[in-house]
Amino acid sequence: MRDLKPVSVLKLDKEREKHIEDELVVEEPLEIRVNGVNLSVTMRTPGNDFDLAIGFLWTEGVIRSLDEIGAIAYCPDEKQPELKNVVNVALVDAGRKLQSSRTSWSNSSCGLCGKATLDAIRQVCRPITSEATVAYDVLCSLPLRLQQQQPNFRRTGGIHAAALFDLNGGLLLLREDIGRHNAVDKVLGAALTAKFRFSETIMMVSGRLGFEIAQKALVAGIPVVASISAPSSLAIDLATEFKMTAIGFLRGRSMNVYTRPERVVMA
Amino acid sequence: MRDLKPVSVLKLDKEREKHIEDELVVEEPLEIRVNGVNLSVTMRTPGNDFDLAIGFLWTEGVIRSLDEIGAIAYCPDEKQPELKNVVNVALVDAGRKLQSSRTSWSNSSCGLCGKATLDAIRQVCRPITSEATVAYDVLCSLPLRLQQQQPNFRRTGGIHAAALFDLNGGLLLLREDIGRHNAVDKVLGAALTAKFRFSETIMMVSGRLGFEIAQKALVAGIPVVASISAPSSLAIDLATEFKMTAIGFLRGRSMNVYTRPERVVMA
Repeated sequence: MRDLKPVSVLKLDKEREKHIEDELVVEEPLEIRVNGVNLSVTMRTPGNDFDLAIGFLWTEGVIRSLDEIGAIAYCPDEKQPELKNVVNVALVDAGRKLQSSRTSWSNSSCGLCGKATLDAIRQVCRPITSEATVAYDVLCSLPLRLQQQQPNFRRTGGIHAAALFDLNGGLLLLREDIGRHNAVDKVLGAALTAKFRFSETIMMVSGRLGFEIAQKALVAGIPVVASISAPSSLAIDLATEFKMTAIGFLRGRSMNVYTRPERVVMA
Repeated sequence: MRDLKPVSVLKLDKEREKHIEDELVVEEPLEIRVNGVNLSVTMRTPGNDFDLAIGFLWTEGVIRSLDEIGAIAYCPDEKQPELKNVVNVALVDAGRKLQSSRTSWSNSSCGLCGKATLDAIRQVCRPITSEATVAYDVLCSLPLRLQQQQPNFRRTGGIHAAALFDLNGGLLLLREDIGRHNAVDKVLGAALTAKFRFSETIMMVSGRLGFEIAQKALVAGIPVVASISAPSSLAIDLATEFKMTAIGFLRGRSMNVYTRPERVVMA
């Protein structure tokens, strides 16, 4: 798995110049096909590509369960057989045809206001009914646990992470990717395959909590989503409507709980 | 222009709870249509939407110059006329039809490896021939200048910025957006309209320097691109091939110059 790439850099620092060897996060396009037809292209860090494809299809509403997938395989590139940048997901329903994700998304939300988007989501999502609670102290421990398990972030400073924790703060699964959404898709795809009980998990992301991140967590039925950084307006609208606990600026002993604070127990 | 939204938050801090009023960055979908046909949907912060559309069409290779655009207008939403989330760009060539950007992008890069994508890019980009140089001290001053002009970042912590500076570090243009790519499109669209001489500018971004950011700068012909954060492998490949100076981790008096360091003058 090639997720880092060595590079020569001229480092300028306080009037001094020196040449150093450094590492960059690898970014390459992944094309996801369904039944042989292109659905989406994403710029991702290679590795866990099948999890990424499964997570993407699931959280974008293309499949409802793993049972709909017949097989997953890389499509070989005749010119450069070492490249693995196209994944085909063969559905059990081999005759099903899909449109490009952007196109279908925009078509599904006539007028395309935030409200229309929420309408489209409502067909896929159900409100979170989990009665799970999580201790304030457990939440405070998550950023450090996330950071400790991010080897590529420590080496490059340029990669996002998404992780699932249990309600006691135990790390269940973590994935790094140059794209925030890809990291989430990789975690959720792997967790779906491993048959996680999502109603008893916390999802933590290293980046901002935007609409699409909140949407993906919601499709999975995760009751608590936390970010080190800021949420967007639309993410909080979504969390409000579907009763998900959304936490932002989780740093040190401080956090902002935007929705459903009853799931956070002070101890 | 509605770019921030008030929100009530439960702030937990060192065992204390308090309710505070805070602000969130507004995130809403923008659909970009060309000649009435949907091309792309992006989650953006409302404001400067025409600049965003122009910048997007230009840097994605849909148009080569402003002369190709006949008119730009919001498409009214009959149900919610106050919403302005669909922009139509009427080309002078009114009969031209385009595919969705993702679809056409993936189709244009058969096999879709990094190399194939770079091949597709090469048709739009030319190597940077600008002999512009910039002083090390000028580069060191940019992060603070960027930060000082980011009112919404100071208020929310959740918004990206992109800016164009002249070679002496004078700020020419800055835009904030929840999406990194949108901030760049807004700056470049506005600068194209204002007929900037891009060969004598520096672009600075608050986020990571990924492939798409590098590509957009390259289409504009910007000789120096700097980021506070990390670049990706593919961004540096692109900068190398097209002779653009790419700088990362520009913080305090320190920076990493990945490509074409001859444009950085120590004193």
